[in-house]
Amino acid sequence: MSEPKAVLELFNSELKAVNMGLESFAETLLKEQVPTVQVDWRPPAGGDPDLINALDRIEKTTKVDVEAANAEAVDRILKGKPVVVGIGKALDVVPGMRENLILHAGPPVTWDRMCGPMRGAVIGGLIYEGLAAGRKEAEDLAASGKIDFEPCHHHAAVGPMAGIMTSRMPVWIVENQTYGNKAYATLNEGLGKVLRYGAFSDEVLDRLRWMEDVLAPILNKAITLHGPIDMRGIIAQILQMGDEGHNRNRAGTSIVIRELAPHLVMLDDSREQIAEVLSFLNSNDHFFLNLTMPASKSVVDAAAGIEGSTVITAMARNGTDFGIRISGLADQWFTRPAGIVDGLYLPGFTAEDAAPDIGDSVITETAGIGGFAMAAAPAIVKFVGGSPADAIAFTEKMYEITLSESDFYKIPVLDFRGTPTGIDLMKVVDKAIYPVINTGIAHKEPGVGMVGAGLVKPPENCFADALKAFAEHYG
Amino acid sequence: MSEPKAVLELFNSELKAVNMGLESFAETLLKEQVPTVQVDWRPPAGGDPDLINALDRIEKTTKVDVEAANAEAVDRILKGKPVVVGIGKALDVVPGMRENLILHAGPPVTWDRMCGPMRGAVIGGLIYEGLAAGRKEAEDLAASGKIDFEPCHHHAAVGPMAGIMTSRMPVWIVENQTYGNKAYATLNEGLGKVLRYGAFSDEVLDRLRWMEDVLAPILNKAITLHGPIDMRGIIAQILQMGDEGHNRNRAGTSIVIRELAPHLVMLDDSREQIAEVLSFLNSNDHFFLNLTMPASKSVVDAAAGIEGSTVITAMARNGTDFGIRISGLADQWFTRPAGIVDGLYLPGFTAEDAAPDIGDSVITETAGIGGFAMAAAPAIVKFVGGSPADAIAFTEKMYEITLSESDFYKIPVLDFRGTPTGIDLMKVVDKAIYPVINTGIAHKEPGVGMVGAGLVKPPENCFADALKAFAEHYG
Repeated sequence: MSEPKAVLELFNSELKAVNMGLESFAETLLKEQVPTVQVDWRPPAGGDPDLINALDRIEKTTKVDVEAANAEAVDRILKGKPVVVGIGKALDVVPGMRENLILHAGPPVTWDRMCGPMRGAVIGGLIYEGLAAGRKEAEDLAASGKIDFEPCHHHAAVGPMAGIMTSRMPVWIVENQTYGNKAYATLNEGLGKVLRYGAFSDEVLDRLRWMEDVLAPILNKAITLHGPIDMRGIIAQILQMGDEGHNRNRAGTSIVIRELAPHLVMLDDSREQIAEVLSFLNSNDHFFLNLTMPASKSVVDAAAGIEGSTVITAMARNGTDFGIRISGLADQWFTRPAGIVDGLYLPGFTAEDAAPDIGDSVITETAGIGGFAMAAAPAIVKFVGGSPADAIAFTEKMYEITLSESDFYKIPVLDFRGTPTGIDLMKVVDKAIYPVINTGIAHKEPGVGMVGAGLVKPPENCFADALKAFAEHYG
Repeated sequence: MSEPKAVLELFNSELKAVNMGLESFAETLLKEQVPTVQVDWRPPAGGDPDLINALDRIEKTTKVDVEAANAEAVDRILKGKPVVVGIGKALDVVPGMRENLILHAGPPVTWDRMCGPMRGAVIGGLIYEGLAAGRKEAEDLAASGKIDFEPCHHHAAVGPMAGIMTSRMPVWIVENQTYGNKAYATLNEGLGKVLRYGAFSDEVLDRLRWMEDVLAPILNKAITLHGPIDMRGIIAQILQMGDEGHNRNRAGTSIVIRELAPHLVMLDDSREQIAEVLSFLNSNDHFFLNLTMPASKSVVDAAAGIEGSTVITAMARNGTDFGIRISGLADQWFTRPAGIVDGLYLPGFTAEDAAPDIGDSVITETAGIGGFAMAAAPAIVKFVGGSPADAIAFTEKMYEITLSESDFYKIPVLDFRGTPTGIDLMKVVDKAIYPVINTGIAHKEPGVGMVGAGLVKPPENCFADALKAFAEHYG
């Protein structure tokens, strides 16, 4: 058929349209009864010419083999085997820890820029350390310059919410057996009025002292009797038991209890204290969070610093800024103001009371569980909002921005598909799909505590900034 | 439009067909390019005239108000509140228990008709009781007429698999707090070579003696300290933790451990024995099954014997027969030969080795959990076969044969819909949809043990027989 004839035929034949992009064109055609197929297409990087250019430069770079670098990074994440080896005092075990240093969640932040709950937790931490007698003294000391503030992430550690770690606090020691690196986190205090949500009343400090004096030594002895706790094996199980390892941890906490209980009974400590420990664990379903966090950190850290890799190796918030780190850009942070969480509030509180997004717990999503595994934990929507269908859809969406799927962490309802693993900065920016994060919500004022839980979208520009820097560095 | 004209128009217009029933008609039309809609319709009761007649008689009966009777029966099931009040010796607590009586699973069965695994468990039970020294002596005694055999169900009890209960065995005591009735079951021994699967080696008997001497008294003391265990609350939780309460019980067992552990520690028994108890519980994920079973029995028993109700109040198998009981037909059993389970086999075994369907554990399905709640436990398919989509489809199908939905037991993935509750014999026969049952598989020979797990369809005629009897009685 010659071309003019074909064109002629086109005008004589019934019109059938395929529309890409803006749906309004398709809607207009459909109104005119023209059969129209809508194709879900969006321009790369939301059509931003700078970002398209950056993506282009990275794809065409000959400086490094980005694909090979990413394959290496993801392989390291997939092969990570975190085990709990014990509990130690932060000063003794956390690299670079010292008495005048306070570690906090998120990217670096100075006292004057800290949000309310982080200030509250710093106040509590200074009183707990015996460095201040009360709020005023603690605030003055914090502002004096005599106390150093550094991110947990700079010390192979992670902290939920405010993430405050002081030198005498007991910390979990998790080792990535495949690569030999370690990660650390404090022990979970429970929900409500707790240090990590910015509360620092006597009740909070008394609990921290009991955790140091009773809980930590007893648990540590039980772990010695039990042997290292295989976190990879337990996380694989809990994803079949309605947990996702970030904000639903009832199964994980249960498994830790049943694994340790036979050994706890055998300790020489008073049975009253052992019973206190078991009651505390039974009353605190979030206990396991402070184990999935360092487990995730130890796994993702093994993939950090790979020349040419666009894999995201840290996402973290301090209640002021949200920040990310990229494997191929060493220890550089890309930060933007932290967002507000969309969630469910405890009785008496509203979004008005909320501090911006805070905490290192998004390390779980970075490692491919938490929000990325929500399809395994549909009941979580009673805690963070939304419907079970949303929970499944969130996980499905995350496959679009990840490079692989876990060989160990399987989601039954998705036909035992592995969790989406290895977030690729290029995919995130290209598709303008951002990591799904579920999180607790702290009151914006120091001293109050938890007010709710929900979902939060990270600031898009964080990822755009990182991509441009990566293109600059390698392009 | 006058009728002849309408008919004429029909012949002149394009043919569009709606086909009900047999799909082959629709397929023929579709082949001829005739637009055809297939309606999923089947004649009531599979088109069986006797059953259609029986359904008709029941619907038209004025002797009793079947609808009101069923509403009452379901209301009682929905309001049941089972709590574990303790552990006792069968002889002391099970109504009608005596030293020469052996209770078994399923409808009544005599020694000569018993299947292999039930014979094996009887042999083990007689040796355990000190009534026989070995297999031969036990078989002779069992055949002598000196031992009475009666169903667990006739003594407010239920037993998994062979379901053998002898007089000195420790049993769970579960009370339905709403109606005051009690139910009983032995304690779970674990998987593999165990009495309930027909094994009776020294290893099996030693374990039973340890359960009597150590496990039961220690657990009973811990329950006394803890207070009654709210089974309704725990079952509600485990359905959000990937259990369905019949063949997946990892969450349930975990919750029992974490609830009791703080009290176990406080007992005066030796810490070695308490540690043994905790290790045993931790190594046996089916431990909770022997709690969901009497819990279900206590709930469904409260709905038994309601004049005019077609609600099914018992389903049970003894490895020879499958039997059901209907609320409005008092204690009558309707039995047919037990089927063969379609399932996954342990290494070294095949369907050739399987005993027919056996056990009272289908009381869980009768009460609306187990197979009826499989959508809550997609990971169970790794144990019983099939896909997660099947598990969800099974639960959805069960809404078609039940009268209501649980107010307490919610399935997250079905948008927190209550589990299908109150099986209506009329719906089962009318729709020819049969209860979904998941189950363990025992070796057909005495003394071997477990060989697999799977799904089983109950014999259809059981339900047909019961319906005809009901129509006869009330019609």
